[in-house]
Amino acid sequence: MIDGILLTPLNRINHSKGDVFHAMKSSSEGFSGFGEAYFSMVNAGSIKGWKRHLRATLNLIVISGKIKFVILKADLPNSEILKENLFEIELGPSGNYSRLTVQPGLWVAFKGEGEDENILLNISSQEHDPDEADNIGLASFPYAWSD
Amino acid sequence: MIDGILLTPLNRINHSKGDVFHAMKSSSEGFSGFGEAYFSMVNAGSIKGWKRHLRATLNLIVISGKIKFVILKADLPNSEILKENLFEIELGPSGNYSRLTVQPGLWVAFKGEGEDENILLNISSQEHDPDEADNIGLASFPYAWSD
Repeated sequence: MIDGILLTPLNRINHSKGDVFHAMKSSSEGFSGFGEAYFSMVNAGSIKGWKRHLRATLNLIVISGKIKFVILKADLPNSEILKENLFEIELGPSGNYSRLTVQPGLWVAFKGEGEDENILLNISSQEHDPDEADNIGLASFPYAWSD
Repeated sequence: MIDGILLTPLNRINHSKGDVFHAMKSSSEGFSGFGEAYFSMVNAGSIKGWKRHLRATLNLIVISGKIKFVILKADLPNSEILKENLFEIELGPSGNYSRLTVQPGLWVAFKGEGEDENILLNISSQEHDPDEADNIGLASFPYAWSD
């Protein structure tokens, strides 16, 4: 695992009227303060990224559908991705229901893998601030997204 | 509006790859500390409640489907619901996308109104603690849930 990434399995509590899914507690490992919570949808087959936060720690939870995350430890320009600098995982409530913590300084991209709604919740340690993150095009890294 | 309830319209930012939905910032009105975030699903036609928190302030956001919330200011036993002690609202991303803040001491119940997934996020000021909330049956109040 790359330094700065933490993967925490989350509980799902079965209930006949509708299940309850844990997300995060203030005592959870990976919690580094509450700045903002927001949802990001990603359409089936669409890819959002790359983004690198400079101060914010992200806590990412997929509550509907399935989303593939790719995390890179890399400088720019980058013509080669070393295996030891790459982390890939698919998350979602029906498969691997886990919280992905990403510390600042790592590049993040994610792809909608479910056919219907793909919804992630990010509990960020910082309020949104466009000056706090770098955004670059998908082609900036030679990562091979499968179809 | 009952004392102790706050309704805050939330922004939805359109994006061709999937929209972003605001939920809460630490600077938002209604934020009273981060204890825990969790999701609760409620099946179409199912009703969860009544529950009354003793210390926790709830911040409820419906990110998928449609959920009807009913909030009551009431003591037990209660044979009559006065209009001035009742608050009813339907929330969801396709209709009224707002955050419902509920201070401790009020009774809360909610019903799944969407045909598919109905998902709420609660950002609670307290970590879950079964001793911190009262749970009573739906029939404890003479509220007429429509079909």
